[in-house]
Amino acid sequence: MTHQELFENIRQKKSFLCVGLDTDITKIPQYLLDTSDPIFAFNQQIIDATHDLTVAYKPNLAFYESLGVSGWNSLEKTVNYIRYNYPGIFIIADAKRGDIGNTSSMYAKAFFDAMEFDAVTVAPYMGEDSVKPFLTYLDKWVILLALTSNKGAFDFQFMTENGEKLFEKVIKTSAEWGTEDNLMYVVGATKADMLADIRKIIPNHFLLVPGVGAQGGSLREVAESGMTSTCGLLVNSSRQIIYASSGDDFAAKAREAALEVQTEMAQLLHEKGIA
Amino acid sequence: MTHQELFENIRQKKSFLCVGLDTDITKIPQYLLDTSDPIFAFNQQIIDATHDLTVAYKPNLAFYESLGVSGWNSLEKTVNYIRYNYPGIFIIADAKRGDIGNTSSMYAKAFFDAMEFDAVTVAPYMGEDSVKPFLTYLDKWVILLALTSNKGAFDFQFMTENGEKLFEKVIKTSAEWGTEDNLMYVVGATKADMLADIRKIIPNHFLLVPGVGAQGGSLREVAESGMTSTCGLLVNSSRQIIYASSGDDFAAKAREAALEVQTEMAQLLHEKGIA
Repeated sequence: MTHQELFENIRQKKSFLCVGLDTDITKIPQYLLDTSDPIFAFNQQIIDATHDLTVAYKPNLAFYESLGVSGWNSLEKTVNYIRYNYPGIFIIADAKRGDIGNTSSMYAKAFFDAMEFDAVTVAPYMGEDSVKPFLTYLDKWVILLALTSNKGAFDFQFMTENGEKLFEKVIKTSAEWGTEDNLMYVVGATKADMLADIRKIIPNHFLLVPGVGAQGGSLREVAESGMTSTCGLLVNSSRQIIYASSGDDFAAKAREAALEVQTEMAQLLHEKGIA
Repeated sequence: MTHQELFENIRQKKSFLCVGLDTDITKIPQYLLDTSDPIFAFNQQIIDATHDLTVAYKPNLAFYESLGVSGWNSLEKTVNYIRYNYPGIFIIADAKRGDIGNTSSMYAKAFFDAMEFDAVTVAPYMGEDSVKPFLTYLDKWVILLALTSNKGAFDFQFMTENGEKLFEKVIKTSAEWGTEDNLMYVVGATKADMLADIRKIIPNHFLLVPGVGAQGGSLREVAESGMTSTCGLLVNSSRQIIYASSGDDFAAKAREAALEVQTEMAQLLHEKGIA
């Protein structure tokens, strides 16, 4: 998917929501545990209930890997389900991978060939040759960790050299490796006050913004500091939507929660004059 | 496994070799492709041929994930094969994971509960809460990326603040999160000249050292600058051993290659007076 196609989807749905499929076997309704693939059954219902309100889904790999082979199987089925039932939705492997060049190529194969993801989150610590193999796939994306939403972000990401912080150096350096059509950045909503400065470095790149909702970030603040003329934002919400209810009405409640976010997003896009 | 138990294995085998199981379906002998699980069949023969010469095996997850569900299945079988046929061998998931706290807990479950790895490699970019969940498992280890063996290591790992480089800050800061019994560091053999300085920060921690062989690092240099009174080194070799031959004699040739490295290691341990 190109930058422009993603923007068209955002305009059409009046939404820049990404629903995080962090599906935890201990948190899904009891009755699903009797199905042959509870994780997939849960995802299927969440997807059916929210697909018109969201432009992206983001399974976090950790939740699937924690179940071994069966989890990996649920993941593949989930990706295929979205791909073939709701084409045009952007699918992100939240995997935070990154290794030496020939190994990163294998990860790229895993997410772009063996499975049909559109994007994969990548950790920048190992530098250029750990990121570039993901950028060789046409219409596929790297979403590079820049400024994360968690407390541990303060341990290393703010290290400063000649007035430049590590996350700024990551953004500036890596922006040369890709384009606005294949490279996005993770910037946590809990650090929305830094978005304006980040926009000075990358005025047009898409940002994937976690941390709205459960982690405390504000959607309006993110939009006011980070939105571009092509939106330039994918705001992720996971727990707040998929666990809106722990009962059998989980899918209907997920839709309500997603609708609430989408309604606010439509307003923010309207205020910006782009949808 | 404790630090002391790992050292005892090293003394007994006169080896601090870790064999990297970076098994690539395009590089294994043709005849194995007719078996039901070629990746596992290859690994099994490599393991049978080298288990007495090595103290650790390190499957790199990327190679397994690139094959989807079947790859993940081969990985589980490989870990179980080592665990039950050759107990006492240290098994490392070279996964380079790391995410916000509740998500890293899921990765820890994946590698320490769903599979019986002894250790997992972790990327430090997201800081303390991304690493700590792995450290809550008794006798399990985090192997944190510090100074990697690839060219991209120079992009960010050498960023300097008040005379301290990022990889040094990672080591100093994280050394407070764990102990010499549950925390190791990745330090590439291609940067062996920095090992002496790293030993000033962490005189006793084990280091996992990739980059000897195919990537050009020297075993003697690594041992001279990095060996401690409990060895403190696991030196990884992947391609040089597992692809020593591309023919049907691959297992015998892998043994020869491993024996050559182990013989040099026995000499280095002898010179240090510890085995």
